[in-house]
Amino acid sequence: MKVVEMRSPYLIFIGSESRKTYAKTGAGLVQWRPELCRGQMRLAADALDLGLADMTLEEAASAGVRSLVIGTATVGGDIPEQWYPVLRQALGLGMDLVAGAHKRLADVPGLAELAAANGARLIDVRVPPAALPVGSGAKRRGKRLLMVGTDCAVGKKYSALCVERDMRAAGMKADFRATGQTGIMIAGCGVPMDAVVSDFLSGAAEILSPDNDADHWDVIEGQGGLFHPGYSSVSTGLLIGSQPDAFVVCHEAGRERISGWEDFPLPSIEDVIARTIELGVLVNPAIHCVGVCVNTSALPAPEREHYLAELGQRLNLPCVDPLIDGTLAIVDRLR
Amino acid sequence: MKVVEMRSPYLIFIGSESRKTYAKTGAGLVQWRPELCRGQMRLAADALDLGLADMTLEEAASAGVRSLVIGTATVGGDIPEQWYPVLRQALGLGMDLVAGAHKRLADVPGLAELAAANGARLIDVRVPPAALPVGSGAKRRGKRLLMVGTDCAVGKKYSALCVERDMRAAGMKADFRATGQTGIMIAGCGVPMDAVVSDFLSGAAEILSPDNDADHWDVIEGQGGLFHPGYSSVSTGLLIGSQPDAFVVCHEAGRERISGWEDFPLPSIEDVIARTIELGVLVNPAIHCVGVCVNTSALPAPEREHYLAELGQRLNLPCVDPLIDGTLAIVDRLR
Repeated sequence: MKVVEMRSPYLIFIGSESRKTYAKTGAGLVQWRPELCRGQMRLAADALDLGLADMTLEEAASAGVRSLVIGTATVGGDIPEQWYPVLRQALGLGMDLVAGAHKRLADVPGLAELAAANGARLIDVRVPPAALPVGSGAKRRGKRLLMVGTDCAVGKKYSALCVERDMRAAGMKADFRATGQTGIMIAGCGVPMDAVVSDFLSGAAEILSPDNDADHWDVIEGQGGLFHPGYSSVSTGLLIGSQPDAFVVCHEAGRERISGWEDFPLPSIEDVIARTIELGVLVNPAIHCVGVCVNTSALPAPEREHYLAELGQRLNLPCVDPLIDGTLAIVDRLR
Repeated sequence: MKVVEMRSPYLIFIGSESRKTYAKTGAGLVQWRPELCRGQMRLAADALDLGLADMTLEEAASAGVRSLVIGTATVGGDIPEQWYPVLRQALGLGMDLVAGAHKRLADVPGLAELAAANGARLIDVRVPPAALPVGSGAKRRGKRLLMVGTDCAVGKKYSALCVERDMRAAGMKADFRATGQTGIMIAGCGVPMDAVVSDFLSGAAEILSPDNDADHWDVIEGQGGLFHPGYSSVSTGLLIGSQPDAFVVCHEAGRERISGWEDFPLPSIEDVIARTIELGVLVNPAIHCVGVCVNTSALPAPEREHYLAELGQRLNLPCVDPLIDGTLAIVDRLR
């Protein structure tokens, strides 16, 4: 598994990104590792505000920042050329650069030399481990809970982190298993599934959650969505390699189309449950849904409770907003 | 799309491989491009015989061979160290090396320098094109026929090549679209799907079969199997990106377990048809099965016809052994 060691505190780089969906790396670090985030740097007046102090690179250096973390995650995972001067300046100030793009910092001309000259490091979180195996399908010891989504960016990572926290609070053995760049930055280790060569995708998921104690839960961050025209194969490989005993469906209330693929309607939660079981029984006949985590932030406050109650009744499953309610109602079903 | 230019004639390198399934690259070239194959080189007495003249490297060089083609495809796609001396000697004789492994010839120590010194080339067929897009799901013009398998190595490539031949003979516009190393060597172009980074898998399949005339068929080589514990995500990405109008199920008569994953039973042809439609409607509501291609070589000759007739009646679809019967019965349904 890939282990990353980032030097804190961080300056989160937002660029000109105004959409929260595409700044999820920065937002995730602020949510889950606030004590490590010193400030934010934005290149446009309407860029997303993560609630951190705005800083120039010089101000950040004076404030003791040790890493500039690229906080955005664009479709395709590029590092735009207009950012290069910022990246060079940060290295010149001795800061590490941390990125989770498909394009590697090490492949941006000149950065490696600048880093070496300034005692700084280039940390490409999205580089998968070497020598991954092909998936074997062999049953592993211990238990696994996988987050599956109705779409990308609906709260799969937050839900998994909440479940890990609540399981541990309940005295259970649990580990969050990160599968994307943000999760890996938060956890300090994991496998960037979407950067794995496709022949080794389910094998990578097997490596991610190895044999463990019989009563230990791996809480696995999901990726993509099984009904997604771009990413369904990533979701499939993660599902097959994870061989989950149980899964949680993650959803954003009010979302009706696949975000960024507006010709595609969002699948229903029932469809996602049925499809996940249908595919997952190949590697674990016991697979079943244990709850739904909903990001209700788009709903007016008075509707929130009604929405979750109605959904819970319809599905006969605990349905929670993990950031508001916690996930104990779901965790209770797994004890 | 990746275009490869191989210099013929070829010496097919079998190493010590005795199983036909794992020598499919060599066998495929002998079947579909016999005029380009001058000889075979085997390192063990019980290694597979492709029916070519056995040659040493020196004999091959004297016979005018211009490329040593690695004819095996192992699980995981490695190039074993015990082959390195052979590869070095071939380069020393001025031959190109051609391989379709995940491990790249260019990454074997010393080969690049030897090639340069001898005017020879290292051709890694399994390196995908650069800058692939994420799949868009947008509908493309023209028609697409995808081969799907009950398992790996059941005849998907041969079936596609037969269908291309029979479509063209029937006056239809058709192109074989290669998705694996052997198919790419045969066709001279294609995309090695299983070597694509998983985020771009369906995007790669979209690139493979671009917009075309309304009455043109892309006949797309399949990969893996939707019920395969190692490779189902590759099959899923290819299916979603291909957005096929029609598909053919490929099967080997008598096979009952996933080859190499003996704990997993082979899915039924009916299961494969149902699952393919279930997943494929996401990108093409018209998707339907138009026939079954069966490799009947494991059956005694008298049983062959009965097997195919019984299957055809059960499924109400044309069922053929493409190498014996041709695929006209299937092609007829697409005219």
